[in-house]
Amino acid sequence: MTEAYFVFLNAVGLIAFSFSGAIKGIIKELDLFGIILLGIVTALGGGAIRDIMVQKTPVMLTAPSYVLLSLVGVIAAISVKGKRNIAVYTKIFLISDAIGLASFTSTGSIIAYQSGLGMIGMIVLGMSTAIGGGIIRDILANEVPMVLNKEIYATCSLAGCIVFWACYRICDINLTSFFSMATVFVLRMLAIRYRWNLPKFS
Amino acid sequence: MTEAYFVFLNAVGLIAFSFSGAIKGIIKELDLFGIILLGIVTALGGGAIRDIMVQKTPVMLTAPSYVLLSLVGVIAAISVKGKRNIAVYTKIFLISDAIGLASFTSTGSIIAYQSGLGMIGMIVLGMSTAIGGGIIRDILANEVPMVLNKEIYATCSLAGCIVFWACYRICDINLTSFFSMATVFVLRMLAIRYRWNLPKFS
Amino acid sequence: MTEAYFVFLNAVGLIAFSFSGAIKGIIKELDLFGIILLGIVTALGGGAIRDIMVQKTPVMLTAPSYVLLSLVGVIAAISVKGKRNIAVYTKIFLISDAIGLASFTSTGSIIAYQSGLGMIGMIVLGMSTAIGGGIIRDILANEVPMVLNKEIYATCSLAGCIVFWACYRICDINLTSFFSMATVFVLRMLAIRYRWNLPKFS
Repeated sequence: MTEAYFVFLNAVGLIAFSFSGAIKGIIKELDLFGIILLGIVTALGGGAIRDIMVQKTPVMLTAPSYVLLSLVGVIAAISVKGKRNIAVYTKIFLISDAIGLASFTSTGSIIAYQSGLGMIGMIVLGMSTAIGGGIIRDILANEVPMVLNKEIYATCSLAGCIVFWACYRICDINLTSFFSMATVFVLRMLAIRYRWNLPKFS
Repeated sequence: MTEAYFVFLNAVGLIAFSFSGAIKGIIKELDLFGIILLGIVTALGGGAIRDIMVQKTPVMLTAPSYVLLSLVGVIAAISVKGKRNIAVYTKIFLISDAIGLASFTSTGSIIAYQSGLGMIGMIVLGMSTAIGGGIIRDILANEVPMVLNKEIYATCSLAGCIVFWACYRICDINLTSFFSMATVFVLRMLAIRYRWNLPKFS
Repeated sequence: MTEAYFVFLNAVGLIAFSFSGAIKGIIKELDLFGIILLGIVTALGGGAIRDIMVQKTPVMLTAPSYVLLSLVGVIAAISVKGKRNIAVYTKIFLISDAIGLASFTSTGSIIAYQSGLGMIGMIVLGMSTAIGGGIIRDILANEVPMVLNKEIYATCSLAGCIVFWACYRICDINLTSFFSMATVFVLRMLAIRYRWNLPKFS
């Protein structure tokens, strides 16, 4: 059961992130290949960075399902394009993106835990997995990565990693993972709802 | 013999890619070091990504010949600069670049095959090797990577990877590698000749 | 003793590089998280690239002290901001940055030496460690990396790597490391003082 809901959330994350990458590609007027590549890289990039840092073969090299799920997001983005109900789509996008952020943060922290790493390892791997794909997406699109100057986004992921670290000694790993995900998701939703922003120093 | 022609094609690929990187550096008005670095990174970047993904030490760390071949491309680019016959040079450049794309696609797929990976692994490693260097080149030059919006380029590499996967069970690995390379090269030449482009959705 | 001075120099390098990253973030009007991330990535990025290339787990995953030292640089940058004595700060910054460049070049070459690599390995790892963080910083800030077109910078690192390679067979490793660092530091100071530049071909 826990396994099944994890797989489900991970799939939602892959689709949401590839969707966001493909949308960016369409805005940047890339060709079909560029759109597909940007979608796939956004979905799989964070996980690849995570796996490379702990000397694991990136999952995407062996799991066709990851690439196929990413293609679902790309196809969704292409078919959405030109449709009218942008407000609804934006809402769906933000919610699923937050679910992706939440589940990927948790995945990264779990890998750190399984690799015997401590708090710093959980934070670095959790955040790399959650925000790495988006950073690669924006670099390829020749922009300053959104997470560096947008409303509270990576900070939610950071909070989730810290919750993971605080819970994993006293809780079951599944429960820990759930607390971590819930923290990220709820914080992100609140940040969007109330337009929270971090201070700037310009 | 097969080994020898492989080494030859690989060398042509390294020179062609470092040539393209150095040309980009000259256009961007980088200093001598910047031009050399951009040339070397373009030639060696794709292979480094490939090796890191399968936990191998990047070849460039141990093979001075790779760096020396890249320097040949850089020197060629600097000496070409200011010469008149641009049409001829462009033709030479496009042909050797296509040979590089073809041989690097094949190299990547071979590494995936040797690592026991399946179709997705062959595609990801084949394409990373072939287009990774060019993507790093364009990111360093602060541009949207050419492969994301230029005429059919990465698609040729993708086709070569799929041909590799289709052939390797029924053919000798050398023959498989040759079919893969021939596919990439011929498709790329046709794409240039007839200005094939993928659709955009802007 | 040698160990202690190495740790000290490394700490200075981490602080100097995170300082430069945070300053860049402030200039680019990033939010607080963006400034912190840019500072940390600049300080730790080069070492992470180095470790990944030789299949080691990046030090930052296991050493909280590295992240804490980087935060010191970030806090320094935020508190400096708005102060008057820019000339003094610039001088402090350039000197500590040169110390960072010197010590990181040496660290990279030592790892190459310990991994049994030769001259090319020492050059690639030494330079990746020393200039990798700054390249990532500038890519994230959406600029052409400073090292590609600024006055002699990476060239000092290259010289240090070659000195390391020339000395390590005939000298003690600590002495080798010191010669390498001294070369980088002195060359860099001279390059700043006399505004040395490499030729361009535009």
